[in-house]
Amino acid sequence: MHAANIAVNPRASLATVYDTQRSAAERVAAAHGASVAVNPAAAIEGADVVLIASSTPTHVDLITAAAEAGKPIFCEKPIDLDIARVNRCREAIERTGVPLQLGFNRRFDPSHRAVHDAVRNGEIGMPELMIITSRDTGLAPIAYLKVSGGLFCDMMIHDFDIARFMLGDDEIVEISAMGSVCVDPMLTELGDVDTAMVIMKSANGALVHINNTRRAVYGHDQRCEVFGAKGMLETQHPRPKPMLRSDVVSAAANSPLPFSFIERFAQAYVDEIDEFIEVASGKKSPSVTFEDGRRALILANAAWASVRTRQPIQVRYD
Amino acid sequence: MHAANIAVNPRASLATVYDTQRSAAERVAAAHGASVAVNPAAAIEGADVVLIASSTPTHVDLITAAAEAGKPIFCEKPIDLDIARVNRCREAIERTGVPLQLGFNRRFDPSHRAVHDAVRNGEIGMPELMIITSRDTGLAPIAYLKVSGGLFCDMMIHDFDIARFMLGDDEIVEISAMGSVCVDPMLTELGDVDTAMVIMKSANGALVHINNTRRAVYGHDQRCEVFGAKGMLETQHPRPKPMLRSDVVSAAANSPLPFSFIERFAQAYVDEIDEFIEVASGKKSPSVTFEDGRRALILANAAWASVRTRQPIQVRYD
Amino acid sequence: MHAANIAVNPRASLATVYDTQRSAAERVAAAHGASVAVNPAAAIEGADVVLIASSTPTHVDLITAAAEAGKPIFCEKPIDLDIARVNRCREAIERTGVPLQLGFNRRFDPSHRAVHDAVRNGEIGMPELMIITSRDTGLAPIAYLKVSGGLFCDMMIHDFDIARFMLGDDEIVEISAMGSVCVDPMLTELGDVDTAMVIMKSANGALVHINNTRRAVYGHDQRCEVFGAKGMLETQHPRPKPMLRSDVVSAAANSPLPFSFIERFAQAYVDEIDEFIEVASGKKSPSVTFEDGRRALILANAAWASVRTRQPIQVRYD
Amino acid sequence: MHAANIAVNPRASLATVYDTQRSAAERVAAAHGASVAVNPAAAIEGADVVLIASSTPTHVDLITAAAEAGKPIFCEKPIDLDIARVNRCREAIERTGVPLQLGFNRRFDPSHRAVHDAVRNGEIGMPELMIITSRDTGLAPIAYLKVSGGLFCDMMIHDFDIARFMLGDDEIVEISAMGSVCVDPMLTELGDVDTAMVIMKSANGALVHINNTRRAVYGHDQRCEVFGAKGMLETQHPRPKPMLRSDVVSAAANSPLPFSFIERFAQAYVDEIDEFIEVASGKKSPSVTFEDGRRALILANAAWASVRTRQPIQVRYD
Repeated sequence: MHAANIAVNPRASLATVYDTQRSAAERVAAAHGASVAVNPAAAIEGADVVLIASSTPTHVDLITAAAEAGKPIFCEKPIDLDIARVNRCREAIERTGVPLQLGFNRRFDPSHRAVHDAVRNGEIGMPELMIITSRDTGLAPIAYLKVSGGLFCDMMIHDFDIARFMLGDDEIVEISAMGSVCVDPMLTELGDVDTAMVIMKSANGALVHINNTRRAVYGHDQRCEVFGAKGMLETQHPRPKPMLRSDVVSAAANSPLPFSFIERFAQAYVDEIDEFIEVASGKKSPSVTFEDGRRALILANAAWASVRTRQPIQVRYD
Repeated sequence: MHAANIAVNPRASLATVYDTQRSAAERVAAAHGASVAVNPAAAIEGADVVLIASSTPTHVDLITAAAEAGKPIFCEKPIDLDIARVNRCREAIERTGVPLQLGFNRRFDPSHRAVHDAVRNGEIGMPELMIITSRDTGLAPIAYLKVSGGLFCDMMIHDFDIARFMLGDDEIVEISAMGSVCVDPMLTELGDVDTAMVIMKSANGALVHINNTRRAVYGHDQRCEVFGAKGMLETQHPRPKPMLRSDVVSAAANSPLPFSFIERFAQAYVDEIDEFIEVASGKKSPSVTFEDGRRALILANAAWASVRTRQPIQVRYD
Repeated sequence: MHAANIAVNPRASLATVYDTQRSAAERVAAAHGASVAVNPAAAIEGADVVLIASSTPTHVDLITAAAEAGKPIFCEKPIDLDIARVNRCREAIERTGVPLQLGFNRRFDPSHRAVHDAVRNGEIGMPELMIITSRDTGLAPIAYLKVSGGLFCDMMIHDFDIARFMLGDDEIVEISAMGSVCVDPMLTELGDVDTAMVIMKSANGALVHINNTRRAVYGHDQRCEVFGAKGMLETQHPRPKPMLRSDVVSAAANSPLPFSFIERFAQAYVDEIDEFIEVASGKKSPSVTFEDGRRALILANAAWASVRTRQPIQVRYD
Repeated sequence: MHAANIAVNPRASLATVYDTQRSAAERVAAAHGASVAVNPAAAIEGADVVLIASSTPTHVDLITAAAEAGKPIFCEKPIDLDIARVNRCREAIERTGVPLQLGFNRRFDPSHRAVHDAVRNGEIGMPELMIITSRDTGLAPIAYLKVSGGLFCDMMIHDFDIARFMLGDDEIVEISAMGSVCVDPMLTELGDVDTAMVIMKSANGALVHINNTRRAVYGHDQRCEVFGAKGMLETQHPRPKPMLRSDVVSAAANSPLPFSFIERFAQAYVDEIDEFIEVASGKKSPSVTFEDGRRALILANAAWASVRTRQPIQVRYD
């Protein structure tokens, strides 16, 4: 998908592709007139900028290598599941000074962005309450779930980032979380949950709620509501085939939500690549930074700690 | 308002009225052809059934007196702010066997009732997530706030009851709460909050979120969303003057929400009196019991304890 | 229904009832503590004001009798199907000077009234386009349809009145209509239609569209949209059990519309009786007059003439 | 815009550009690596397929030239304002057998297409009522209006096409139209209208309403509602920045509609080019044909004739 979005962008083209599965790299490269790199180092060498969409454990090494090669970096979230490794990686980034943009695509979603812009513009006053609902359409394969880092690091990390996106400089200072296994008992064996809720407090006293489930049968349900002294702003769902149906069963049923995150955030994926091209050409700073990724991970880890210790966690970012 | 709803009901009439302000009692009595009672005992004596809508601290004594007189009782929430007094009152009720219906009017709201009926009917499967949003339109007068028992006992108690209403037999077992003062710093002096969030877990693992604020400028915002394996049900706002306006400022703006709880729950107030008449004539059991009031108070107290101790609270109902 | 609404109104009570079926009169009278009149004259004699809800052909004689007895009159629409008889009846009314309120209940519907008030208040400028959609949930019994006067006089007459209600002094001057039989071929035998559309032009150049069908499976669908230079106003459906359902079949399905006109306009029926009591006590003029009924009938007759002659009709009200 | 959509399409590229303003052609050609043609014949010669987006009076000659050169043709609507010229052009097309796709972009709008697919799939039964609302956001410049062919040929022609799109084989047989000048008196001088309504009947008895205005201050308002025995289907507006705002002025105001047709139908413009590439490569027949353009023009002319003669018009397509 990233390859196609690069191809469509008039200011970019795909130079070279590396994948641990060579056939996959060849297929993508052939589709877009790119070469196949024999290893990551060759891929980094063969391009002006580096886009990392590999498995999470490889991110830190690839970021470090690209940074040392002086190449602007786009990296999918999360940076890593281990905050110590993330902190070391941060040093590499800071030392080299290359720009890095993190793949929190949801910040580029037109609806979330519209709410963000209105909130940051002061249209509802200081945020006082925020309700973030985030629901996938079904469990990922068990092989993926095993290495995913668990619901908070894999899924709710997006919502922690959205909370921070909306709050601006007002950071989260306390978090209390609860988890449950409602979708599949297998999650219990994995030491994971499939259903979760958190409440958080910011430095300014804003209260934030997030709820997650791995399985919403009616579609990919991503919502954010921000409330302040002057009113409330809510995101709305895009609908791929906007239509209203009234029949003997129901009056005025909306057309389905997007069912996959790929479909739900199609425009966001295009726009984040477009911004990265701006970033790589030095025209702007990334709007989603390494530090944003690091802080979302800290919140995800704090949520896990809260579930495990059954205590609220005071959050520190150093 | 209760007097008017009694007058409108073809099966009931107002017999006698007692109020600590005699002029108020006289005005209501005159409007509906009722007599004025010289004291509560006379009022209880002079009627077949007793409706208690006095200040909270008087509830327990009035309930006890009416129960001992063998009169069916309708009492506004909360029963009392002190669980020990509530427990003693429960004994009086149980001893006399008179039916008591508690004024959790929101259970009678057509929209909340429709969601409840569909949930209890299994239409979405077992509840897994519930999001309850409950926002008043402005701070009550400070004199009221001082004796209100605080946000959790005065306001969120309704939402604890709605959570229990939707969950059926599946009781809340754990609660974690956060409070904030965003509306008026005076609340800090009162040792109260004006903005709050809780998360709760039920015995079956359902997760429940409630958010409250004392001031929503756009209207009385009462919502409940219940999610399960088969889908989601959401209440919808009634709109007193349903109209959509599209103009140069906004496309498709809905007409205002009701701005007061009186207007928001007008039908619910009528319907709860109607049910009470059924209850008083022995035709049905009350759908909101003394025990419902007691348990909602236990949850409200647990929420307060969680805010004060910054700990989650395990809830016990004995 | 009218009897119950009179009973509920604190300023009125049912005095006496006449019905061609004596048992029906007895049942209604007994329910509300009224007497049974032996004939219409006795009923008129026995009450301060007269409410006429009999079959259409009897209206003119009953109006005339009540007017000559000097009793304020509430009469269901239509006045009569024969404009010559209506004109003669008008003379009787004018001669006696009794107030008469016509039962165009839809003017009292909170949503239609809200749009009316905003339009008449100039909030969208002069009306330029109006779209009125009006759909019943199924064919009435054939016995009723035979004497109904046909779709335009029986059903669309309400919509002609709503058009005039919204336009204020700006009267319709031209109408073009088309009819079709889509629901039941029996209508063809009756010389009637079950599906119809009209377009009309007002003196000021506003264009108005009405569409009707006798059978909408999804509920009683009554809508009005008024468009002007400053924007658009639309009525919204009330929903008896407001709830949104999201499931595997559909995302966000609204709860059903009211299925009968009785349910759809319940509040309107209450409010029109309340206004009539004001009218009868001389406190205000009726907001729906005999002349409103006469002009709606003229429009309905013009629509029929347009269908039959396949010509647009220039409308005259003298 | 077409040039950009061709550039984005991986299966097409812009070969050569002709424009009566050479500088405009040079700008577009330079942006997409195309050559500039010295005249239309050279442009037709220099490309595999021909896209005609010139002024309406030039369409017929360009279509004929491209057809005789054997090149597949995409042409913007309307073909021409003179039905005799259109008929002659039809002969040229038929003689050469080249495929021609007409630019009724609205057929490619995801929402209109979803309704069409559901209707043609029988989901609501045979269409019985159709309501098409189509409103521009403001008057075009007078220079354009003078040569536009008038509201029915320039603007409502899209709605005639949508009506035919939804009805399938069931052709319109009768039309009655009314026009008004509400936006700008200048239109009267031009012999045109800026506000219009039609009603039409199909061979099967379906009734269709269209309303148009040149100026809707709240945005580009394009709606279609199709009603049948089994229910109703309605298009929904796309919203570029989907957001709901609740504040002291209004509860739940939707984000603005697209304000230009370019924005409203952005996806449709992309998709029609994509289909044309399929058509040009012989993989499918055009879904909007020359004959569709001819019939929409016949309906537009009939609407004008109805306004001028104040008579309904029986429509013939030969």
